[in-house]
Amino acid sequence: MLAAGTTARKSFHLDKKTALETFKDFLPLESINPDLSLGEGDTPLIQLVRLRKKFRLPLIYAKNESSNPTASFKDRGTALAVQKAVSLGIKKIGTVSTGNMAGSTAAYAAKAGLKSIIFVKEDTSRGKILAARVYGPVVVKVKGDYGQLFRKSFDIGRANGIYFMNSVDPFRIEGYKLTSYEIFFQLDAGIPDYIIVPVSAGGYLIGLMRGFADLKGLGVAPKLPLFIGVQAKGCSPLARAFARGQSRFVRFPNPQTVAHAISNPNPPGGRLVLNMIRENGGRIIAVSDEEILRAQKDLAEDEGLFCDPASATTFAGIRQLDRARMFKADDRIVLILTGSGLKTLEDMASPRIPCRTISINQLEKKVASVIS
Amino acid sequence: MLAAGTTARKSFHLDKKTALETFKDFLPLESINPDLSLGEGDTPLIQLVRLRKKFRLPLIYAKNESSNPTASFKDRGTALAVQKAVSLGIKKIGTVSTGNMAGSTAAYAAKAGLKSIIFVKEDTSRGKILAARVYGPVVVKVKGDYGQLFRKSFDIGRANGIYFMNSVDPFRIEGYKLTSYEIFFQLDAGIPDYIIVPVSAGGYLIGLMRGFADLKGLGVAPKLPLFIGVQAKGCSPLARAFARGQSRFVRFPNPQTVAHAISNPNPPGGRLVLNMIRENGGRIIAVSDEEILRAQKDLAEDEGLFCDPASATTFAGIRQLDRARMFKADDRIVLILTGSGLKTLEDMASPRIPCRTISINQLEKKVASVIS
Repeated sequence: MLAAGTTARKSFHLDKKTALETFKDFLPLESINPDLSLGEGDTPLIQLVRLRKKFRLPLIYAKNESSNPTASFKDRGTALAVQKAVSLGIKKIGTVSTGNMAGSTAAYAAKAGLKSIIFVKEDTSRGKILAARVYGPVVVKVKGDYGQLFRKSFDIGRANGIYFMNSVDPFRIEGYKLTSYEIFFQLDAGIPDYIIVPVSAGGYLIGLMRGFADLKGLGVAPKLPLFIGVQAKGCSPLARAFARGQSRFVRFPNPQTVAHAISNPNPPGGRLVLNMIRENGGRIIAVSDEEILRAQKDLAEDEGLFCDPASATTFAGIRQLDRARMFKADDRIVLILTGSGLKTLEDMASPRIPCRTISINQLEKKVASVIS
Repeated sequence: MLAAGTTARKSFHLDKKTALETFKDFLPLESINPDLSLGEGDTPLIQLVRLRKKFRLPLIYAKNESSNPTASFKDRGTALAVQKAVSLGIKKIGTVSTGNMAGSTAAYAAKAGLKSIIFVKEDTSRGKILAARVYGPVVVKVKGDYGQLFRKSFDIGRANGIYFMNSVDPFRIEGYKLTSYEIFFQLDAGIPDYIIVPVSAGGYLIGLMRGFADLKGLGVAPKLPLFIGVQAKGCSPLARAFARGQSRFVRFPNPQTVAHAISNPNPPGGRLVLNMIRENGGRIIAVSDEEILRAQKDLAEDEGLFCDPASATTFAGIRQLDRARMFKADDRIVLILTGSGLKTLEDMASPRIPCRTISINQLEKKVASVIS
């Protein structure tokens, strides 16, 4: 396997213990400081045997990014951006976030001994804010337009010596490439036919595509996967533009979806994503909240994978494309589960089976009737 | 490294992708069915550089078990017990749990296509129940004594064809050995001087000790680590017995602690733990809720690791033993963080820094004063 990935200049260091060290030849860092790592990456790739059988689907794998240190794929990007920040002597970092990126940025700042500042939307839920506040950042709820805040954060950073590592930060995107390399090795130097990934700002999709492009460039991958970006119907600026054959998108009015982590009406990486997807031959599609919640249930009840609604768009997307007869029987599909369901317990369909109370004396008599 | 672990009969298969396959020669299974795995194990070992410096401690590593599929170490045990259950043709599994084990058992049941039944205490929090219900098990809140329920569950299982894989199930404990093997390889075939682990029923401590005993038996480890079991002062039946030099313990009256995951007044593995710890030369200690919440904050704010209060007892334990001058400067200590803080957001000290609201127009003016 090592030989397969070796060229005159770049190698995969498969004997290394951490993802950053294994793939360091492909990263824009002079050196890697292991003291800044929380053990990001190296996430499981799980075959979805039961859902495949249930819905007569091709071979599907889930790349479970919720096993990252703060339970989302953001850690891969933050890990890299923080390496860069520290190497530049920067002492303060920040981000603009609706949830996962806040926790990730605050955690890596804590590990590196940096100060951090997190801007969140005024209506962000208490639970999500708490899951970031535990790491000791300055958290500011900002009243006003989120897109404007995204742009303004860079000015604020410049004026105050704060590196704002937002969703499409180039170092973040470089960190996301590692997911692709890992999939390649987990499939025994194989390239899936399709990669299905939720799309918000666009950074993760761009990183994943670059990762596979690297493998093709090295000569170890015979082809690129087709990429399917999935958005929630209630906030789908890129899926709309794609469906209309447009290479520009317009801001999505009144976004409303249960998939909060990808509810971005004006994605900063949107134009690049539209161009890259068109060149790749892939698609950007949209799924309804009903489809999303159904897919979340399917993944939990049939595969034991509890992801957030944003991640569940991927399986909802497979179901939709399968009904449109997109796939061949021997296709291999990888869906990217970007984050854990534990941070979004309030955003779920009700469990199928009621929870009942029984006294211990009645238990032996009643158990047979509740589990038959 | 492979050679170091090879004997005539048993080898470490370090080229394998999953923890169960890597260590299968040391597990009581005839074969491993990869379709039953959720990608458990293979968790990060992180050096705590900043806390070491802050408190002038020896070298400390954290084994972060919250990166397991359902965010706790329980998955290692459940994975193994479910392999066994399926190989025996069993169709229903169950457990008695206050939280983490419920989610873990329900998730692996879903993955394997088994029915599952979970008995929880009547006062278990809604969030914890929901984090298990998502996988579709039958959940029963039981009115009555928890210890009695633990014993009764085996009768109920026998009568109804349900394999109750409770906390000290022998297959569970075999699964826990893998944490020890992983630590050994992560330390480059090294044995830590101390392992510090929270103790509830006792299963994890027993499994960890057996894992290191295997390594010593193979001739690859020159010694065993000293084991420190930590309990919460508000529920510390084993620490009490240990302090009194007793090899039997009595049920702890009126347990009350923020570390719910280890609040077990009558631990089923207790006697075995007391004997094994004494033979090992280790200790069982107790820490207060105040120490626990302080340690949880330290781990989050200085190391970017957000664990539950039960896990935080380990770092609270280090601080206590360090004040008693237990450690030498060149000791290597591994603390086991057993589960994620995301499931216990309601059980925390208030964050140090307040969260404030600022309008976007005021932001540039006010940022300097909130992050200086």
